[in-house]
Amino acid sequence: MIDVAIVGSGVAGLAAGLYAGRYELKTELFSDFFGGATASAWTIENYPGFESIDGYDLIMKMRSQVEKIGGKIVEEKVEKIEKRGETFVLTAGGNENEAKTIIFAQGAARRKLGLPKEEEFSKGKGVHYCTTCDGPLYKGKTIAIIGGGDAAIKGANLAVQFAEKIYIIEVTDHLNPEPVNMARLQPFIDNGKVEVMLKATVKEILGEERVTGLKLDNGKELAIDGLFVEVGAIPDVELAKNLGVELDEKGYIKVDNNMSTNVPGVYAAGDTTNFFGGFKQIVTAAAMGSVAATSAFRHIPR
Amino acid sequence: MIDVAIVGSGVAGLAAGLYAGRYELKTELFSDFFGGATASAWTIENYPGFESIDGYDLIMKMRSQVEKIGGKIVEEKVEKIEKRGETFVLTAGGNENEAKTIIFAQGAARRKLGLPKEEEFSKGKGVHYCTTCDGPLYKGKTIAIIGGGDAAIKGANLAVQFAEKIYIIEVTDHLNPEPVNMARLQPFIDNGKVEVMLKATVKEILGEERVTGLKLDNGKELAIDGLFVEVGAIPDVELAKNLGVELDEKGYIKVDNNMSTNVPGVYAAGDTTNFFGGFKQIVTAAAMGSVAATSAFRHIPR
Repeated sequence: MIDVAIVGSGVAGLAAGLYAGRYELKTELFSDFFGGATASAWTIENYPGFESIDGYDLIMKMRSQVEKIGGKIVEEKVEKIEKRGETFVLTAGGNENEAKTIIFAQGAARRKLGLPKEEEFSKGKGVHYCTTCDGPLYKGKTIAIIGGGDAAIKGANLAVQFAEKIYIIEVTDHLNPEPVNMARLQPFIDNGKVEVMLKATVKEILGEERVTGLKLDNGKELAIDGLFVEVGAIPDVELAKNLGVELDEKGYIKVDNNMSTNVPGVYAAGDTTNFFGGFKQIVTAAAMGSVAATSAFRHIPR
Repeated sequence: MIDVAIVGSGVAGLAAGLYAGRYELKTELFSDFFGGATASAWTIENYPGFESIDGYDLIMKMRSQVEKIGGKIVEEKVEKIEKRGETFVLTAGGNENEAKTIIFAQGAARRKLGLPKEEEFSKGKGVHYCTTCDGPLYKGKTIAIIGGGDAAIKGANLAVQFAEKIYIIEVTDHLNPEPVNMARLQPFIDNGKVEVMLKATVKEILGEERVTGLKLDNGKELAIDGLFVEVGAIPDVELAKNLGVELDEKGYIKVDNNMSTNVPGVYAAGDTTNFFGGFKQIVTAAAMGSVAATSAFRHIPR
């Protein structure tokens, strides 16, 4: 019998695993891909304590900390979670695992444009969802980044080191990144390496074998080698919904200040919640994980 | 004109300073003692990313991160904060500083027993409020720790390495630390080095020049060399109260999910709030600081 089954192995899940382990609870983390969004986040400079660290290095530090305290990481997709009496039964990799409590910490999936060929070309044929991860593949090439938020501009700041030309295509009339990131990009806008197109949307992805261009809603066509979609994320809440967990009006798992959901024994932490409004950071995910584990600990009878 | 004036320079204040700096806000942190509770917290093993780190080392990493991004640390006690029109005027070290926003992150002060001689003996004469800080002074001696919470038991776990004999005196009928810390202490209770007295309170601190013993409410007298009071903390909220900031029922600064207080432009983070209930950790303080700075950033007109 697992005390705390954590769905997800990103920062929120690992912080929950660390605290649950310190509470001497039998703790297992389940996820098909280890490390969550942070693992592919490139350079992190806003997690207090590390002036600058690669996301993958940070997540590996957190992993070893969890494993040292006794937490187990199971790299299997969770297929189903059911309630049987007072116990939860979590199916992963074809095996059933009984657990006293569940913490959902599975993050949020990248939002897509929903255009024809997008899915097909996303398999190594020029469509990407993480500029900081895949930008370096386009050395000397032309790319387009869709979106005007912080992820888009941070991605552009990385891409200028590799790409020859970068288009930023944003549906609203302004970019909305952290000012420090905008300031870094500005010289490249000024010298023309980065071209910003506002009030513009992609109508069609062009190309036969792979991406070769974009057609915009204003009729303009751009020749590109790679397309980077940075238009936000949607939380993966199916497992939670099937357990009867309530969502908020934006579709995220609804939690109170203790990270409790409406289902006793079920908690959530990190990007799968909308706890601090739209503000989703490594440090906030870590804090939520620590709180969720503490609530799980208090829930388990001793 | 300062954009964000932060009162306090512990983890919450430094995390706020980091984020405010990244938002390119003119940021200054004010406090008479740098580093907050973490600076004297000895070994930290529950901050995600660091398997084990000295509290002082962690706080110095956070300090250099803040200073690198342009945050300024002013080691002066804040004497007064007033509102003048849309601006706050913060007086520290006799100087007036104008600020657009205020973040209270001044932590909480240690709770005292309120006994005669306690204050007098706390000046280097055997009364202490942080076992992990001052325990090592009592090599080969006998000490008493008052309190049964996690701070008390963590302190005892350190003190067993130095002291000859340790009494733990707790007013309730049970100890209430994290199980992992209790498990570490158990062998020393079993071998008699640590003696736990439940349902007991200190009636009198004995000694002329310095602490020599305790008299308990059951009439028993203990000969000791040092007294460690670990009975919690009270938030330092006078500056906030004078600004009209609302407190919660326990006397902590009341904040919403954005770390906003009831006064526009005034935020709070860390142990001076009770945001996650009684749960006050380095990682939760850091998250709150990041959120408070983000709210301040959104509040300032651009």
